[in-house]
Amino acid sequence: MTATQSKLHLLDVTLRDGSHSMKHAFTEEQVRAVARGLDTAGVEFFEVSHGDGLGGSSLQYGLSAVDEMKLIAAAAEECKQAKISVLLLPGIGIQENLEEAVQAGAKMVRVATHVTEADVAKQHIELGRKLGLKTVGFLMMAHMAPVEKLVEQAKLFESYGAEIVYATDSAGALLPHETRERISALRQHLSCEIGFHGHNNLSLAMANTLAAIEAGATYIDGSLRCLGAGSGNTQTEVMVAVLDRLGYRTDIALYPIMDVANQVVAKFMPRPQEITGGSLIMGYSGVYSSFLLHTQAAAEKFNVDERDILIELGRRQAVGGQEDLIVEVASMLAKNR
Amino acid sequence: MTATQSKLHLLDVTLRDGSHSMKHAFTEEQVRAVARGLDTAGVEFFEVSHGDGLGGSSLQYGLSAVDEMKLIAAAAEECKQAKISVLLLPGIGIQENLEEAVQAGAKMVRVATHVTEADVAKQHIELGRKLGLKTVGFLMMAHMAPVEKLVEQAKLFESYGAEIVYATDSAGALLPHETRERISALRQHLSCEIGFHGHNNLSLAMANTLAAIEAGATYIDGSLRCLGAGSGNTQTEVMVAVLDRLGYRTDIALYPIMDVANQVVAKFMPRPQEITGGSLIMGYSGVYSSFLLHTQAAAEKFNVDERDILIELGRRQAVGGQEDLIVEVASMLAKNR
Repeated sequence: MTATQSKLHLLDVTLRDGSHSMKHAFTEEQVRAVARGLDTAGVEFFEVSHGDGLGGSSLQYGLSAVDEMKLIAAAAEECKQAKISVLLLPGIGIQENLEEAVQAGAKMVRVATHVTEADVAKQHIELGRKLGLKTVGFLMMAHMAPVEKLVEQAKLFESYGAEIVYATDSAGALLPHETRERISALRQHLSCEIGFHGHNNLSLAMANTLAAIEAGATYIDGSLRCLGAGSGNTQTEVMVAVLDRLGYRTDIALYPIMDVANQVVAKFMPRPQEITGGSLIMGYSGVYSSFLLHTQAAAEKFNVDERDILIELGRRQAVGGQEDLIVEVASMLAKNR
Repeated sequence: MTATQSKLHLLDVTLRDGSHSMKHAFTEEQVRAVARGLDTAGVEFFEVSHGDGLGGSSLQYGLSAVDEMKLIAAAAEECKQAKISVLLLPGIGIQENLEEAVQAGAKMVRVATHVTEADVAKQHIELGRKLGLKTVGFLMMAHMAPVEKLVEQAKLFESYGAEIVYATDSAGALLPHETRERISALRQHLSCEIGFHGHNNLSLAMANTLAAIEAGATYIDGSLRCLGAGSGNTQTEVMVAVLDRLGYRTDIALYPIMDVANQVVAKFMPRPQEITGGSLIMGYSGVYSSFLLHTQAAAEKFNVDERDILIELGRRQAVGGQEDLIVEVASMLAKNR
């Protein structure tokens, strides 16, 4: 990889993916402080939503402590230049949620589906464009589909009007050569911009990020202090330092982005984003990172090894929305003991 | 990278590099528990010494709570198959220390010098061979020398009798393409085996480890829960999972290695090995990871930003042994404020 001085777009997901780690209990004060810090540091886009996207606040996915529309509006108020993204999973969020988010100040929508389900998102992508938003297709659990399938689904997103399509490593399961293969294929077969969203369950978030950039991705996600589901995301402030060393231009200032990470986020995060027993096995077996806290609760309730639950969920190819399977598997393992 | 089924040798440095993070206060009980866990999991080699190697216990480098010879003997007692390595920095450790370590049960010595100083290690390498140890040359701060210089120094080590030569990223400063370039050159110009030791200051320890393996390294260091200087090392138990996914053979069992990480090491580590302000800047500016706690103390004493101290140390190309520079730089920054 050589210095290119090409412009990369960094999108910080602390206030959305981090919602999982915070058990969806972000306060307005926390959101304002992070938003101010990101805006000051020069971050171009950052995402604010429930961890499972607009409308995610529910018994199944976890209730938000503060209404996300209030959080989006608060974040928007703090911004001089940064633009706010929202995540929308069709089936969890509805079109009215998106319209309300735009009222609150959102300028970008990322419509997220399982890697094989892009076709459920046609109307949401079209709505995003109609509302004047920067509109993104977000293919989750990208490790679960062969490269050709991923390309096919990405082309669907592009055909609906998505301006950027992401390959999303929701389980932190991709290896660098798998990331490179996927992003290269997307770059080859699509005309729109390509994005990458990583998780650090195998300690490979930064490796995958660099592989994605080398292969042609121009939109890259990260979170401050890695705050996110599972073992968290590519660490935004570290990525700024690494990209600077590699000669890429992000227009983000290093000390200010470190300051919001270490003086704001580090102060309220409930625990460090280490790679522990459960989160490692999620990456190893390819299980959705947002299943982590649910799995730990089930392991405790049924007195079984959380790793065994996760390996079985991986074997069954469980995907987002199948949270009920966690308890079913835990119960089965307890009975078979 | 493809599955190769070639055998990789993993060397765990928790009980040596982790000594920095523990402020050299490992107890005999902790060392026995870690040694037992590593041995049970099937780890082939692990290292036990003061963080700065044999004889490192001193006011300058930090006093060990328990004599390292006692710790080496205790670890050796716990092992059915694993072999114990010791680190020796000529100038800090002396030949008598090595002889004593062999009495205590050490089977491998890693003779460590700054990347341009291999010639000070001739007699130590020769002594290692004479004592029947697996004998290793360990070139620290490998990012500070051009590739040709690194190769020249590695060839010196090989000429003295080293059976393995390591490129050691002491500052966590190497980028994956730089690691690949260095290990490829060593592989091309040397006949002995090649090793790699990484630090995670830029969240690239695992990326560099995979780059090193692809380029021909067959000895790889890691530490449990990353316990080590700076932001810590490549996380051993995660590496076992990743190498398994890639099809490499390590003969280490995943659940048992995770258990010693999460049920033993995690319980006594004083703080998580996150990438924070100081440790990030060490990787960014290329400063020796074991300087971290000393720098933080100086930053507090002189009320200056630890990052400014580290960036100035990087500019001055400070190397191990120049710990006095930390206070000098901090004092200079305080005066110039």
